[in-house]
Amino acid sequence: MRETLIKLNHAINKGGRSYLEASGYTEVMVPRLVRASGACENVNTLFEIQVDGDDKWFSGKKGYLAQTGQLYLEAMVPKLNKVYCLGPSFRAETKVDNRHLTEFNMLEIELATDFPGLLHEISRIIKNIADAAAKNFQEIGLTKKDRKRLLSCPEEIQQITYDGAIELLNELGCKKNWGDDISSIEEQKLVARLGNQPLFITRFPDPMYDFKKEIEVEKFFNMVPDEENPGRVLSADLILPFSGESAGAAARIYDDKTLVRRLKNSRMFKRLTERGGDIGDFQWYISQLKTNGNVPHAGCGIGLARVAQWILGSDDIRNCIPFPSNKATII
Amino acid sequence: MRETLIKLNHAINKGGRSYLEASGYTEVMVPRLVRASGACENVNTLFEIQVDGDDKWFSGKKGYLAQTGQLYLEAMVPKLNKVYCLGPSFRAETKVDNRHLTEFNMLEIELATDFPGLLHEISRIIKNIADAAAKNFQEIGLTKKDRKRLLSCPEEIQQITYDGAIELLNELGCKKNWGDDISSIEEQKLVARLGNQPLFITRFPDPMYDFKKEIEVEKFFNMVPDEENPGRVLSADLILPFSGESAGAAARIYDDKTLVRRLKNSRMFKRLTERGGDIGDFQWYISQLKTNGNVPHAGCGIGLARVAQWILGSDDIRNCIPFPSNKATII
Repeated sequence: MRETLIKLNHAINKGGRSYLEASGYTEVMVPRLVRASGACENVNTLFEIQVDGDDKWFSGKKGYLAQTGQLYLEAMVPKLNKVYCLGPSFRAETKVDNRHLTEFNMLEIELATDFPGLLHEISRIIKNIADAAAKNFQEIGLTKKDRKRLLSCPEEIQQITYDGAIELLNELGCKKNWGDDISSIEEQKLVARLGNQPLFITRFPDPMYDFKKEIEVEKFFNMVPDEENPGRVLSADLILPFSGESAGAAARIYDDKTLVRRLKNSRMFKRLTERGGDIGDFQWYISQLKTNGNVPHAGCGIGLARVAQWILGSDDIRNCIPFPSNKATII
Repeated sequence: MRETLIKLNHAINKGGRSYLEASGYTEVMVPRLVRASGACENVNTLFEIQVDGDDKWFSGKKGYLAQTGQLYLEAMVPKLNKVYCLGPSFRAETKVDNRHLTEFNMLEIELATDFPGLLHEISRIIKNIADAAAKNFQEIGLTKKDRKRLLSCPEEIQQITYDGAIELLNELGCKKNWGDDISSIEEQKLVARLGNQPLFITRFPDPMYDFKKEIEVEKFFNMVPDEENPGRVLSADLILPFSGESAGAAARIYDDKTLVRRLKNSRMFKRLTERGGDIGDFQWYISQLKTNGNVPHAGCGIGLARVAQWILGSDDIRNCIPFPSNKATII
């Protein structure tokens, strides 16, 4: 059983990497023990390190386990154009259930492209992974039916805007207000309604836009506002059948002054300062922008355990990876 | 500068992976946040995690950052025959100098082979990496002289036993006793004397053999005793020009009773119990052995930052990787 899941993981890695390597991406081995710059939106689920009880072991600074390599990748785009990393993401998730893990592998890309270009890249990666899994379907424990399902994965993943998704959910009988989060059950309702294939929900509400009401949907600080639709950002969530939200993607702001302003105004930053962090946590990233400059770019992080769950058609992520870990399980 | 080092890292990864993938190895994404089973010999340099001040966050258990994926790989050999992982190794090294890092990437293999078979595999990996670097020498900032040096890397890496190394060091004027550690300066003396190429020092003293004197050389608990040379184990260190010890390798004990006995008698285990750990930390590994059985096998971990240092011909590891980290530096 475990060895079959290892083979599945291996097929996923190879499917993703073979596309990226053939397309001119450079792999970056981003640091995984970092300052708070390794947090994505969830500062409250950062693991901290300590050595002999000292939690400021790095010359008075705290060290955290990275949730993402995003900022390290972003800083390299002006020099390397297309970059990726594939490695562990750590989350101090307290939920012990069929959807959450404390460690999982993530494939992240950043490249000098626009928002449609990014969604195309993600479609290519997902299609390549589906094909790699379908090719080795017997070895990784799949049925012929699974194989057929994977081979039917479209070349370009279908898109629905967040606004459209809220409207459709209301048609489907869910009572949703604009600004609400979309739950994992609702994600699957959308997927079922739209053909049981991978789906992008795009252009989420911008939490830093001057709304009259509190916006509940919370996203990363550096997403580009959507000029055509004020109050939205050029972001997308990849929703997979079975596993739901499997990737967060966005066009990134590249003007350093706007970036720092949005960072300081973000909820993530507020939480970080409550925990003793400050702008110094992002010093490396900001100094890179000043040194290397910045270019229009976009990127995403794809949670590979959820991709495995989609491939296997399973309801429980714990059955889809070889070394499942959560608050109740560490090996 | 940093982008050149990223390209070098990328070439190293590709050089290693291309050999392994073509040779039937399965990649295993081993867990990096683990119990003490992720320690190698250096329990005293384990990073511990905490969440909101709780250092037993995993349902009363401590979580550590992995130094190695060795035991997870080993447990898979009976099912998958040849396995590898490539990812971060974390060490709470207090030394801030030209040789030590708190995070570096390590390529680890385990396979069903004997000791000579293992050394052959490592030779193949190193040769493939040298060739990959030589092929892209301009892009990764190397001179033609570097290229020539790398292309001269032999197909099979030269070997000297630990006993022979001690004898040779005494001939070279170093006053060494059998059982002493070999320092990094002495490693470079051996390399210089033996042709300035990668070198294996093999068959180190077995710290668990019943010697009359205290043995200072300390190695992992599961190395196979050398039947032909009592008091030695079937282990090897890969010594590279410039960077020194870059890989630890050994044939592994596969009898579960002997394994558990040697584990419990090891210094590593003694240190672990002093820090509050116990045999439960190795429960997963031991139960895997009982479930999957075990076969004769061998493996190694290659520190890729030191490989990069060799390729660049540099005296300082901090100049050889894109994101150097030590106690004084975290980004």
